Amino acid sequence: MLHLVIADAELELVPEGIANHPAVVNYARRRGKKPNEVILDGSYHHSALKRLPDGERRGRPDIVHICLLNALESIANKENVLRVYVHTRNDEVIYIKPETRLPRNYNRFLGLMESLFKKGAVPKDLKLLRMEEKSLEELIEELNPDEVFVMHEDGESIKPENFGKILSGLQNPLVIVGGFPHGDFRSKIPWKKISLYKEPLMAWTVVSEVLVNFEASIGLPWFP
Amino acid sequence: MLHLVIADAELELVPEGIANHPAVVNYARRRGKKPNEVILDGSYHHSALKRLPDGERRGRPDIVHICLLNALESIANKENVLRVYVHTRNDEVIYIKPETRLPRNYNRFLGLMESLFKKGAVPKDLKLLRMEEKSLEELIEELNPDEVFVMHEDGESIKPENFGKILSGLQNPLVIVGGFPHGDFRSKIPWKKISLYKEPLMAWTVVSEVLVNFEASIGLPWFP
Repeated sequence: MLHLVIADAELELVPEGIANHPAVVNYARRRGKKPNEVILDGSYHHSALKRLPDGERRGRPDIVHICLLNALESIANKENVLRVYVHTRNDEVIYIKPETRLPRNYNRFLGLMESLFKKGAVPKDLKLLRMEEKSLEELIEELNPDEVFVMHEDGESIKPENFGKILSGLQNPLVIVGGFPHGDFRSKIPWKKISLYKEPLMAWTVVSEVLVNFEASIGLPWFP
Repeated sequence: MLHLVIADAELELVPEGIANHPAVVNYARRRGKKPNEVILDGSYHHSALKRLPDGERRGRPDIVHICLLNALESIANKENVLRVYVHTRNDEVIYIKPETRLPRNYNRFLGLMESLFKKGAVPKDLKLLRMEEKSLEELIEELNPDEVFVMHEDGESIKPENFGKILSGLQNPLVIVGGFPHGDFRSKIPWKKISLYKEPLMAWTVVSEVLVNFEASIGLPWFP
């Protein structure tokens, strides 16, 4: 089983400090919600974000959305050899059941995340997504993988197909992909760092590279 | 050079027949546009879509968005061995320059597409995206590839990594991926059909499978 963690993801509700900013107030009103009940989105709250520390990288639920669409609709997930988690900048962890069919529409995805932050699990009966307060370190301790890899632009250079082979040789590898647009991890990452390309890649590109090369290496029984 | 065509994509402006439907009128007003200037989106225009033929599959700009984000941010594109095109249900073709940095935010992507439908090319100076009236057949004749493959659930079963090897052995292969949620192509597809998995896959999953396995096979000089 491959464990994939989107870590330090820039996914959060609008923080207290900017809840009264006009950009946020108007946006929340348009969506029929209270300012502190909407997901922070840099596309809409840009002027408000300037007031916050790390403002230039925060409010990127779109990165989480695309990474999850790639992961949950992957062949690896359909073959039940993948588990996916999101760890956020505020040390929350979202556990996602493999059978989850995520909303394809971004605005519906935001609605789902808002509901998750409010209720702790959605939908109420199936609990396909569940959120707990937890650091990256605690999550990894809990999952107890046999090896942890951090995808990192300063990591050891490995061709994607060779990294797939390394992963397929392990029982329970865990791969960490940063869920932020640029800069470095906020969490401590005392694990082996891996780089798949000479330039930084978008998080969702790394997710696809890791999963597709992993699939190719484990030799799944693709066809009946 | 690998040519990737997202074909019969469910990307269109709101058609005449439902421009006066309340769901469309309210949506357009909220976005400050005329009803016939907004991109049809099944998530919002669902009740209006029921009135249209093929209503259950139309209005899926989200599929195009995610396919393009995967393709344009791929290593293959960064290495300049990929060209990407979108062909729509109404026989328009969007030519996309490889250096295009597409909006990550879905709503901004919709705005860009609306602008493209209105102006024929965006942005005005760089023309990174350009639209022409053209059928799938005409596009392929123009591109003149040495072989054409249609990704299709009824196609010949090939493991993704082996399909990557086939592509890498050609000078100018062209791969067609359906840009619709389910059902079959509307365009004639008199080309070799290929299936990568025993079940249907989402369009963006097929895009990643094709590109990552192609990259692995051509043996790019990944690192300096």
